[in-house]
Amino acid sequence: MTEHSLWRFSRAMHRAINERQLDEIEALIDEDIEWSLHGPVDMFPFFGARRGKAAVVEVIRQMAENFSVRRFDRESIMLGVDSAASMMRYSLTALESNQPINLRIAHFARFRQGRLFSVRILVDSHELIEQTLGRPLHLPRIARPV
Amino acid sequence: MTEHSLWRFSRAMHRAINERQLDEIEALIDEDIEWSLHGPVDMFPFFGARRGKAAVVEVIRQMAENFSVRRFDRESIMLGVDSAASMMRYSLTALESNQPINLRIAHFARFRQGRLFSVRILVDSHELIEQTLGRPLHLPRIARPV
Repeated sequence: MTEHSLWRFSRAMHRAINERQLDEIEALIDEDIEWSLHGPVDMFPFFGARRGKAAVVEVIRQMAENFSVRRFDRESIMLGVDSAASMMRYSLTALESNQPINLRIAHFARFRQGRLFSVRILVDSHELIEQTLGRPLHLPRIARPV
Repeated sequence: MTEHSLWRFSRAMHRAINERQLDEIEALIDEDIEWSLHGPVDMFPFFGARRGKAAVVEVIRQMAENFSVRRFDRESIMLGVDSAASMMRYSLTALESNQPINLRIAHFARFRQGRLFSVRILVDSHELIEQTLGRPLHLPRIARPV
């Protein structure tokens, strides 16, 4: 039984972010990849949708310029033959400020011949924003008294 | 082939939210359910972790007091024998203000004998906050020029 594409991709991704070595991840991305990283695009320009390997490698390069990964825990996972979804808790360091950032993400990925060709990633953007700003957003309490 | 537990649960959930009929959903929740709804708990007290059917039914009741579902689109899905994960785009109405709220969520669910007994839900909280406030958060641009 061969290793699931997710594990190889995950290792290459963390290596790309922490060591800024992009050649391994580049080899694991389909030329026609559809990529969506849902989150606060005003704050971080690498959020948003991208199409094609070159655009996606550039996003990963930008992430590597801004963050390093200290650790991550996979809280939920589902694996299919050529697909994978997981929810993960990441401990990052923002390189500019040296601030720790802890946030949760969920991803849904599909692979073709071992390469990533479709992925949607959702980030707990409120966590990301507060920790990047280094202060709470002081949100009003909205819900009706019940 | 019987229907996947996700579809029955999903119908009962939308009925609970839109018609405030909780008996159907109550029957589909395990007594010992572990529930995590990750999001801005300061803003909406029904975010957070809950344990046990009574606490979860109360959360669903509170959601029904605050929102109705206009439509939803399932963008990604994975189904296992007793598990399911999906990413969805919801169009909600905030009942207090009558404001439309469009947001993305991801969930990872496990079922036992047809009942939900574990679920983690992640919400694009930045979208939720901005649309609930009715104004953008005016976030600074953070990422390093690259």
